[in-house]
Amino acid sequence: MSESETDSNQASSDSIESARRKVAEQRGKIDDLDRQLVELLQERRVLVSEIAALKRAGSLPIRDDARERAMHALHAQWAEELELPPTVIEGLFRMVLWSSRNYQAQLRTAVPAGVASRRVAIIGGEGSMGRQFARAFESLGNEVLRADLDTSLRPAEAVADAQVVLFAVPIAQTERIIAELAPLARPDALLTDITSVKAGPVAAMREHGEATVIGTHPLFGPAVNSMQGQRIVLTPAWDADADAREGDPHGWLPWLETSLRAMGLELVRSTPAGHDRAMAIVQVLTHYSTEVLGRSLQRLGVSLEETLRFTSPIYYIDMLMAARHFAQRSELYASIQTQNPNTEQVTAVFREVAEELAGIISAKDGDAFSEVFDEVREFFGEFSPRALDESRYLIDRLVERR
Amino acid sequence: MSESETDSNQASSDSIESARRKVAEQRGKIDDLDRQLVELLQERRVLVSEIAALKRAGSLPIRDDARERAMHALHAQWAEELELPPTVIEGLFRMVLWSSRNYQAQLRTAVPAGVASRRVAIIGGEGSMGRQFARAFESLGNEVLRADLDTSLRPAEAVADAQVVLFAVPIAQTERIIAELAPLARPDALLTDITSVKAGPVAAMREHGEATVIGTHPLFGPAVNSMQGQRIVLTPAWDADADAREGDPHGWLPWLETSLRAMGLELVRSTPAGHDRAMAIVQVLTHYSTEVLGRSLQRLGVSLEETLRFTSPIYYIDMLMAARHFAQRSELYASIQTQNPNTEQVTAVFREVAEELAGIISAKDGDAFSEVFDEVREFFGEFSPRALDESRYLIDRLVERR
Repeated sequence: MSESETDSNQASSDSIESARRKVAEQRGKIDDLDRQLVELLQERRVLVSEIAALKRAGSLPIRDDARERAMHALHAQWAEELELPPTVIEGLFRMVLWSSRNYQAQLRTAVPAGVASRRVAIIGGEGSMGRQFARAFESLGNEVLRADLDTSLRPAEAVADAQVVLFAVPIAQTERIIAELAPLARPDALLTDITSVKAGPVAAMREHGEATVIGTHPLFGPAVNSMQGQRIVLTPAWDADADAREGDPHGWLPWLETSLRAMGLELVRSTPAGHDRAMAIVQVLTHYSTEVLGRSLQRLGVSLEETLRFTSPIYYIDMLMAARHFAQRSELYASIQTQNPNTEQVTAVFREVAEELAGIISAKDGDAFSEVFDEVREFFGEFSPRALDESRYLIDRLVERR
Repeated sequence: MSESETDSNQASSDSIESARRKVAEQRGKIDDLDRQLVELLQERRVLVSEIAALKRAGSLPIRDDARERAMHALHAQWAEELELPPTVIEGLFRMVLWSSRNYQAQLRTAVPAGVASRRVAIIGGEGSMGRQFARAFESLGNEVLRADLDTSLRPAEAVADAQVVLFAVPIAQTERIIAELAPLARPDALLTDITSVKAGPVAAMREHGEATVIGTHPLFGPAVNSMQGQRIVLTPAWDADADAREGDPHGWLPWLETSLRAMGLELVRSTPAGHDRAMAIVQVLTHYSTEVLGRSLQRLGVSLEETLRFTSPIYYIDMLMAARHFAQRSELYASIQTQNPNTEQVTAVFREVAEELAGIISAKDGDAFSEVFDEVREFFGEFSPRALDESRYLIDRLVERR
């Protein structure tokens, strides 16, 4: 090595060292600034808790869409003015607002002052969904009786004693347990359940008791971080168009709706049969499809780790969803699929389509493939631009976690 | 209505009015605070641009994992201290850091001072991927020649004139276009492509020219918001274990790797055959599965809107992904599936599994169903807890957008 080369190496390593030192200095400034950000978020939380108290006093709802739209418009204007990326600013504030709504729900902001507390029996109160609803009803000021296989409180006693009976038991046993316990309920009680099929359980509750019957189906599992913003289907046992006074003489529907909204849930009204038809798609088709995908991967004997090295965001999301599915209890999924009256039709069409598409691909028939694409694209219609936009947002959120 | 009722209605409407007024006051304070948040984010951006300049001068990389871990640990500590929800604080800062890395990439922080600029011909330079890479190579200081069907610059001229030739043409035409143009390239040039299959195009580039050959496959499409953090597969035409000097006498691989990293991409090294085997899963299986799902929905004649009323987060993600798929060009997907040498095996296993599972469900065979679950759960293994965690995060991000 010549002398001048040594010199220039020395100079370059000096300049790298000096760059490192200056980077460390700037990073200290960033840490100070980040601390200020976090402190502002805490101040914001104090303001939110004050608003929560006011909303509660004035019986105002947690979520105010017009206010949220106005805020997003204001933030977008600021982003433009300060030359910050608008999608990032929007994403950050969406997270802040979501967290703020969760916080208001924790503070029981939407708990209506005028709704009397009830004695609620949760049959299956030690299961994961049963516990979730027990906590939620308790936090609304109700007295909750948890009964399960191992509790000292016997289910029969709890049912006889309660004003509201919620069946939160495995789907395969729901109708048997209803038949056993529903006759013990008070005639002025509310019978409800959280089973993933509705025709069978609602019919069983009507058949085996005199109480008011409203089925429910929470469209989320115990694995979600928060109930806030999730959906729940309500299927009253009486005809929605008929006089509700006959089906609901004690006014249970408004009580249940108010309670579920106060938990942060969004309500979807349907009939038991309408619910089951929709669930043949929302649950049966998508669960079956995920199961076929997961089982195929396992059967093909691939190395998951090796494929993840090559992952696209789409494949990664598919793998997250498939692994999530199989990490949960098989009994629940078995029941959802075996109990739905429309399952046979759904799996039959799926298999026909799998044959059709395999044939087109094997024949390298580009025209037929393109026709299929056009027909399905038309099916998705107006949903497609929204799907592109929202899936892009999800992909960004995944990439930023890598 | 009695007089006292009127009074009490009046009083209650007064108190609602007063609550509304106070809420509006507090909201003004929140807006002021949000403005401070946004201004801090802008200050942060200035600090980031200063760091970017230092990193560039010192040839330091954009992403520093140890620094990011230290920051997340610090933020978690602050969240605990100030009683803020740790997952929200982490999520917010992940978005801030991701945006900061994007910004540094825009500022060309990682553009190495020592890499000479080249004349890069993009064949298919008017396509969506071609344009994306043209911009990226330009922003690194290269001279880019865009040639396409309608450009005044003829592809043959561009190839003869360039030091680097990138084929960014539809997959079905890639080999034909390579056969036509590759012989015109300079022997010391680099031939590369961005096709989703690798064995065919890489063999064609080797066969029809004397130039150095490195295939690539970007694992993302033109619909992503940013290339930062996305992956790209590199498949050099020579044996990785052999002496690279023979396959790469002009040192193109380090040039290409440095350039792609400077675009913010993460590199995955493989061979053409290894790539195609992995893609039979990552692309063929998941695309086929999505197509079967979308086609089934359309065939079942359901109302998408009605099912979305009942949507669970899982169904919604499935619908986003399916609609996204069919909103894109069918030619690309047709080619990916018809050109992969392992497609037949993949679709055959998928159909077998669809039959197997439909049989189990139809027979209501809970034991067999549970066995399938156990086997597939074992396949996902260690990935499952991560999948539960990350899918929960995604679901939260979706719910907050509703």
